Amino acid sequence: MKITMAHGSGGKTSAELMRTIFGKYFNNDILNKMEDGAVFEINGKVAFSTDSFVVTPLVFKGGDIGKLSIYGTMNDLLMMGAEPQYIACGFIMEEGLEISLLESIVISMADAANEAGVKIVAGDTKVIEGNGGLYINTSGVGLIPEGRNVSASNPEEGDVILLSGNLGDHHACILSARMGIENSIKSDCASLNEITKVLFEEEINVKAMRDVTRGGLGTILNELADASGCGIEISETEIPMSCEVRGFCDIMGLDPLYMGNEGKMVAVVSAEDAQRTLKRIRDTDAGKNASIIGNVTAGSGVTLKTRIGGTRRIDVLYGEGLPRIC
Amino acid sequence: MKITMAHGSGGKTSAELMRTIFGKYFNNDILNKMEDGAVFEINGKVAFSTDSFVVTPLVFKGGDIGKLSIYGTMNDLLMMGAEPQYIACGFIMEEGLEISLLESIVISMADAANEAGVKIVAGDTKVIEGNGGLYINTSGVGLIPEGRNVSASNPEEGDVILLSGNLGDHHACILSARMGIENSIKSDCASLNEITKVLFEEEINVKAMRDVTRGGLGTILNELADASGCGIEISETEIPMSCEVRGFCDIMGLDPLYMGNEGKMVAVVSAEDAQRTLKRIRDTDAGKNASIIGNVTAGSGVTLKTRIGGTRRIDVLYGEGLPRIC
Repeated sequence: MKITMAHGSGGKTSAELMRTIFGKYFNNDILNKMEDGAVFEINGKVAFSTDSFVVTPLVFKGGDIGKLSIYGTMNDLLMMGAEPQYIACGFIMEEGLEISLLESIVISMADAANEAGVKIVAGDTKVIEGNGGLYINTSGVGLIPEGRNVSASNPEEGDVILLSGNLGDHHACILSARMGIENSIKSDCASLNEITKVLFEEEINVKAMRDVTRGGLGTILNELADASGCGIEISETEIPMSCEVRGFCDIMGLDPLYMGNEGKMVAVVSAEDAQRTLKRIRDTDAGKNASIIGNVTAGSGVTLKTRIGGTRRIDVLYGEGLPRIC
Repeated sequence: MKITMAHGSGGKTSAELMRTIFGKYFNNDILNKMEDGAVFEINGKVAFSTDSFVVTPLVFKGGDIGKLSIYGTMNDLLMMGAEPQYIACGFIMEEGLEISLLESIVISMADAANEAGVKIVAGDTKVIEGNGGLYINTSGVGLIPEGRNVSASNPEEGDVILLSGNLGDHHACILSARMGIENSIKSDCASLNEITKVLFEEEINVKAMRDVTRGGLGTILNELADASGCGIEISETEIPMSCEVRGFCDIMGLDPLYMGNEGKMVAVVSAEDAQRTLKRIRDTDAGKNASIIGNVTAGSGVTLKTRIGGTRRIDVLYGEGLPRIC
């Protein structure tokens, strides 16, 4: 069975799809009311974020567009110091999308949300012409506990930059799939909630966090440098990568600093908190390859100390990177 | 200038687009922080809704996809009794989209949001292959003031159904544009906030509200009947339509009960409140053609008393309606 224009009509066929696929797996007390949206009680400082997902292929080693769409928005909220609570999702389906494939993606979203303790509380579906493609938008709401102040503008000279694990896995995985290259590289698609949880439990003063997605480490470090009015210096030898991805990059001529990731983050903490933070991050599954990669400095922009002892200015990504990576 | 894959990279070209188009017009204190999402304080019962917009053509008589995307999500929140406050938007742009067209759509969104007093506080952009198309997802957060209880499950036998104005304008406008038919039919694309404001100011006990969008009046009345466990009876002669749209429907063989609208709503109130509600709705610009179209009855389903004195059972829309209408 495939998606047809009738599934986007808002009538009987749409309602059937809602009942047999979305309602079946996203089942919870708020969604089940089937009003025009979700209603819940919330009090305090709230984080609100949105992200659209257009990755191809829809299913890849280590995940699929559904899992990515839940973790992607959750990670944006987590990086603001928030505890993600509610997700709304909008599906734009191309005619011809296999309903069994849609179902497996919806199950993957439901599993990701359940595991991470967030509720999918509202949704929308549209159908467009096309050839079986799927785009998913998720938006999320989370609560920022009192006393947390995580912001890209906080970092100061002397602070330390930590990276939670190996770079490049998602990018190399998607590119391999797109080019039909056989290897064992898996996307790192994951929630960062385990890492942020231990950081806040340990009462580490986390100044800034960013997930290292589209644009890569080079781009997000520049964003942190700009927002804080400081410089950033990182060391090439400290950047963790798997042997397989490093080899893939060498062969393909890719710069890991501009590769997209889907389960990696940067945290900025004071020098005195650095070792303790590293240890805590390494205690988690998602952060076992974490590393201290550099420092916040005076000045501006991002500088890399290279493997052979030189220095290189790291600008933001210019050009297209890999399109439709997330 | 056209959108290229580089605008979706997350790098320099994306940032440039953000600064010169989105940031320029959506400018406000929350968005300007440029973090991974928005942060604001909120306390109480919250409504949260999402909607994706895929209408073609992107610009039509009476509006464009941008205006539609702001009012569409606002109206969903309003129909839940909420006061819309914050909007997040995700743009999926096809390569080749004219940047001047994108700019005019973004201006239209900013104007709609300013006029309605909501802030666009977070966003995301992606670029996909294609031919200059654009999809917009908006999600919104609103506050439901204490004491409001608007729900599709509230209507009871004896309650009265009001429709806020003429049916079919948006659907007929989009279809005319798609078929190259010259006429003066304009989309009714509008915010319903003026209408909900007078209803709540007058302390009318509004039991249920629904905007009459995709699927049409026939479908949403069935949803109300199902959710409330009641029947609904409406009268064909009381359904307001413009002469031009009525003529268009006759010629095209369209049933106005299944045509999509973008600035019309149904309100269910008690019989004693009905005349007062009608007067108040008619006092507004968006509701000047409002009409009492029927009643909530015992039983189930939706019945139409026809113009010639018969009765007809009204089911939900079956089949595809007009694709990509919203």
